[in-house]
Formats: sequence, structure tokens, C-alpha cells
Amino acid sequence: MSCDFSFEIHARDGKARHGTITMPRGEIRTPAFMPVGTAGTVKGLYMDQVRATGADIILGNTYHLMLRPGAERVAKLGGLHEMARWPFPILTDSGGFQVMSLSALRKLTEEGVTFQSHIDGSKHNLTPERSMEVQVLLDSNIIMQLDECIRLPAPDEEVARAMRLSYRWAERSKAAFERLVKPGEGRALFGIVQGGTNPLLRRESAELLTKLDLPGYALGGLAVGEPQHEMLATIEVTEPFLPSGKPRYLMGVGTPDDLIESIARGIDMFDCVMPTRAGRHGTAYTRHGKFNLKNARFAEDTRPLDETSDCSATRDYSRAYLHHLVKSDEMLGQMLLSWNNIGYYQRLMRKARAAIDAGRYADFVAETKEGWARGE
Amino acid sequence: MSCDFSFEIHARDGKARHGTITMPRGEIRTPAFMPVGTAGTVKGLYMDQVRATGADIILGNTYHLMLRPGAERVAKLGGLHEMARWPFPILTDSGGFQVMSLSALRKLTEEGVTFQSHIDGSKHNLTPERSMEVQVLLDSNIIMQLDECIRLPAPDEEVARAMRLSYRWAERSKAAFERLVKPGEGRALFGIVQGGTNPLLRRESAELLTKLDLPGYALGGLAVGEPQHEMLATIEVTEPFLPSGKPRYLMGVGTPDDLIESIARGIDMFDCVMPTRAGRHGTAYTRHGKFNLKNARFAEDTRPLDETSDCSATRDYSRAYLHHLVKSDEMLGQMLLSWNNIGYYQRLMRKARAAIDAGRYADFVAETKEGWARGE
Repeated sequence: MSCDFSFEIHARDGKARHGTITMPRGEIRTPAFMPVGTAGTVKGLYMDQVRATGADIILGNTYHLMLRPGAERVAKLGGLHEMARWPFPILTDSGGFQVMSLSALRKLTEEGVTFQSHIDGSKHNLTPERSMEVQVLLDSNIIMQLDECIRLPAPDEEVARAMRLSYRWAERSKAAFERLVKPGEGRALFGIVQGGTNPLLRRESAELLTKLDLPGYALGGLAVGEPQHEMLATIEVTEPFLPSGKPRYLMGVGTPDDLIESIARGIDMFDCVMPTRAGRHGTAYTRHGKFNLKNARFAEDTRPLDETSDCSATRDYSRAYLHHLVKSDEMLGQMLLSWNNIGYYQRLMRKARAAIDAGRYADFVAETKEGWARGE
Repeated sequence: MSCDFSFEIHARDGKARHGTITMPRGEIRTPAFMPVGTAGTVKGLYMDQVRATGADIILGNTYHLMLRPGAERVAKLGGLHEMARWPFPILTDSGGFQVMSLSALRKLTEEGVTFQSHIDGSKHNLTPERSMEVQVLLDSNIIMQLDECIRLPAPDEEVARAMRLSYRWAERSKAAFERLVKPGEGRALFGIVQGGTNPLLRRESAELLTKLDLPGYALGGLAVGEPQHEMLATIEVTEPFLPSGKPRYLMGVGTPDDLIESIARGIDMFDCVMPTRAGRHGTAYTRHGKFNLKNARFAEDTRPLDETSDCSATRDYSRAYLHHLVKSDEMLGQMLLSWNNIGYYQRLMRKARAAIDAGRYADFVAETKEGWARGE
């Protein structure tokens, strides 16, 4: 435990855990959902709103920010917290995932990956060392190792190769992190367990990374289109090999159902674009389930999305008005639904933590799913 | 003077006037700028923000709202104030201007105009009587007569024909308004002076309308592409024929410069999409002039748009961050610039009122223009 990062578990219920990560920029209550601020903004929300929903930490995308406005420029502007007016913890990914999914002319070697920007075609390279440097320039607090994310399904030998390369990159990421970062800067490095859906490879990856004694571990390579049961099964076979006293972060996940099922299997942290992306496309997540506000059944529904919420977007605007805004393609519709969705995700995390404290997490999951199924 | 509408002038400086319109839903300080909420939302802003910038009244577009969600539906949802969460005064236009500029297959007769919706091709008709009915269904407070807006330049006989038709529609609008509206409902009807840039026709229109003894008068048919000097000249030749104790509303105007020049010529009210539209396109209006935030010179400019402003959008975000958001096409950039612009327009009105009170309106105009020219 250092002043930069500590993790305390307050309560357990089955595999589910309620904890707190403490960092100089603030506490992160877990299970935690991290809203995604891809390019230095959680799309459609003011940071005050993000904070008021209960978010303790947000995520920034290294790939996007290194291309625009550029890591060195973000540093000149005082770092991401200062630039985007979010003084609380920030986690950045390594850039690896988006290099694989967005950039052109990728070339991967043992050394790292070279690629062309999807924005202007400019050439860049990302090595474990450069990824650490970029994340420090961004002033990230939780820094992710560079890993290789492959497309699934893939043959086992390909999955194994990428996992082992990712491990070697973890070693190099750790060495670079230790060179670049001084204690007291409020930064921590997380490793990423890979291995696809193969239990043996996941175990090997977890055991290798555990030896690096990093402050936290992520599960990567999931939420890439596989069925939910495969994702949950992979969590189940990996979790026993992760250190129980450190936070586990399931990258890029997911739906509210994914979240509560993953928490039951020992996951502590999540990030996903879903709440804001769905909000921009007219979808509201609520305790009554998922609403498509384009649907004509809302045209004269004067009820709010949920009158019991403490989030203004959820409580103060009629479904009829939201329907009208979405149908009219008005920015306010996207703003309100994104805000509602981030608010709902945070409310779900708050309730999950309380249920773990009360030793009734399984009941909470059942009740939550009943609410979604019942609708209203 | 009734409980529904009264206008008091507190101070005059040359032709410029500082006044207050009092209506049951609130006071409107004049000179007043009315943010445009076309479809029941001031694009990109929360109503709380609109209010906090100092807006006393917003404008709704009858054409858009009658097509979507529909006037009868807005009434079912409790009216525009209730639907959009704006409890203060609302002015609605008559629908005539947008019928002419947006709809298809228009057919204009003495009776009114039939047209097809630009959204779904559905057929509608708008008569003076239907326009009054629609505006009452929307729960408008300041209701505009139906008028015919022609494209300029046009031959004098065409301008005269449209102006006289508009006058007959004013008579019918007034009769319909009086049938539909009971005293105490908090509504008032404004007439619209037409006549293009022809002084004699403007005078004829103003004199005809004055006889109807309406609580306020608008100047229509301006800000449709003519040079500023023509618009100002038309205000100058019309103003002497408008009742001095009633508010004058210059429809659809304009730039900050248009506003302060028009106030000097006796105008009390304005509306324009410019601040929000420009904001969505990366332009900020400030006391230092108009900034195109796409410009690379802002990329590392850590100053806010104006550190002396009390508007968060203007004071709390760096130009570099705004530049980044605009370049990245992020919603927050549009939100912040729209908010800044509405804030700037309201600040300009506040300063104009204070300058009129102090008898230094001409100095205020000169200083304001110097600030724009100086830049920063």
C-alpha cells in the first residue's frame, strides 16, 4: 500500500466485493462504473453532471488523445484533468485496442505497433514505453499496460502468442512506468489478463501477471462480440488466479445486466461507451428496463423515465418530451438520455454496493432483473 | 394596461429605451433578446442555463411545433412551458415565415396558406384564425399575427399587396384572438409591420396596425439578407409611426452589432437563431469580437473566452479545449459555444439597459465596437 494507490475491501457477498480505491485525486468506490471520455469529454455531459451522478473516475482513450489534440499538447495545457475540468481520478487505456480497431496500415512487431491515424493518415508508433509516456503526459492516474487485442474467434496458438506478447509488453510497461513515474505523483499501473476464452491461457496470463505485483488487474479481450455466457464463464475461470486483495477491471463492459452478473463473479471496475452511445441513439436505461424513446408509445406519456431517481434527466422530463426531442433529432434529447444513462449506471453501482454490504447481492440481482422484465 | 400585459419605460437615451414588460408569467426587461427554441428546446442548452444567462422570454416556432409534435399534442402535454420546463413568458411566431421558407407546395389565397410539411409531406393549412388557435394550444404568451413574408427584392406593387393582405390578416388575427382568449390567461397579440424597404409602405402598414391598438408591434420582413444599412434605414423611417408607449420587436435579428444599432433606433425586442446556430458551427461571440474556434491560433490558448464573464461557458473553459472539442466535433463544444453565445447576447442587453439608464448609450455602442475591433 502506497500513498499513490490503495485498495480496501469493506464487504464481500459470495464473490462480489464492495471496496474503495484511494488515490491522491480521490476515492473510487467499487464496484465502479467509469464513464468513457474518449476525447477528453464524456459525450454530451458537463463534468459537473458526470460527478453528480456519482462517478468517482472517468476513462480517457489514449489512442484518440495522442492523435488529437496530441499527448504533448495535452501536457502543455496542464494535463487532462485541467483541460477537461475533471479534478478526480482518470484511467487511460493503453491505446492498443483502438489501434487495432480504428487505425489503418497497422504493423505489429515484438517492439510495438506502427499505424496510421484514422483522422489524418499521419504515422505513429506505439510501444509499451511510448504508451507509458503518453499516459503520463495525459496526466493519467490509472495507467494500463500496452497489450495486443486480437479479433476472436482465433486459433489457440494465435491467442497464446498474443497473450504472451502482451505479457512481455507488461514487463516492459512496468519497467518504463517505474522509470517515468515518481512515487507521490498519484499514478498506478494495471496489467491486462488476456487469453481469449481459453481457461488455460487465461490462467497462464493471470499467473504471469500476478508475479509482476501490479496494483490492479484488468480482463481484456472480452466484450468483443462474444455471447454473455462465454464472457461470464471466462471471468469465472480467471478470477481464482487473480490476487483477491487487488481490484479487477473488466474492460469495455457493458450492459447493466453484464455489470451485475460480472460483479457477482468478482469484478470491481467497468468502463463502457454504451450509456452515452445508446443515449445518443434514443435509448434510455432505467430500472424499468431499456426504452427506445423513438417508439410512438411514448408520444403522450407524461411520466418521467423514473420519478424515484435523484437525477434531473431521469426525474424531471416527460417521456413525451424526450420522444419529441429524439424524433426531432434535437441535441437536448441526446444530452438528457446520455445523462440519464450515466445516472442509471451509477445508481446501479450504488445499489450493488449497498446490497453487498447487506449480504443480499443475489436478491438485488433478482429484483433488478424483475424490474427490467416488468417494465412500466 | 391589463393584468395580461403592460409595458413601462424607465429611461430613454435618444431613441433607445429601457423598459419592462409585465405579464403573469414574469417580467421581460427590454431591450430584450429572446433565445429561439424552435422545436421546444433552445438547441444545446438546458432551460436552467438559458434562464441563468438572463433570458426573460424565449421564442417558439409555430410552424415547427404544429408539425411536430403537433399543437393539439403540445396542449395535451400541458403546453409548451410545461413540456419544455420553461415557466416564464414565451413568444411564438405565427408560422407564416417558415411556411414560406421551409414547406413545399405552398398555395396562398386571401383565406390563408395551404402547404405540405417539410418533414413528412402531410398537408396543412394556416389561416389567421388557425394560427391564433395553434398559438393558444401551444400556450404562448406573446402571440404574433399571421402575415405574409415575401422574398426581397420584389416590385413595390407586390410588396404593397403582401403588406395589405398582412393587415387584413391582422384584423382577422385580432378578432380570432379575442374570441379564443379570455382576459387573465396571460396572452397578448402583436401586430407585424410589413412593407419591405419602402418608407411609404412601412408608414402605411404602421398606421393601419396602430389603429388596431395592439399591445406591441413587430417589424417583419427584415433580416432576410439585405445589407445592414437598409435594415437600419427601414427602422428609422418606420419608428416615428409606431406608438411610442408600446414595445417594438425586430423579428429575426441579428448580429450583436445589429442589436445595438437597432436599439439606438428605438427597438425593444429581438430574436435570432444566430447565437445557437453559430455556436454549433464553432463560432463564439465575445466582447473581444467573433472567434472561429476552429482556427489553429486557439490550439494552445489557455485563456477562457472572457475571464470577466459570469457565465461558466465563457469563463471556465480554455480556448484550447474549445478548439479541441470543435475540431473533434464533440457535442460539448457545440453546447459550450451555444451557451457562451446566448450568455453574451444577454450580457449585451444588460449593458445596453444600464447604458440607457446612465444616458451614455452612444458611448456604450462606441466602446463595444472598439472591444470587438481590438480583439484579444
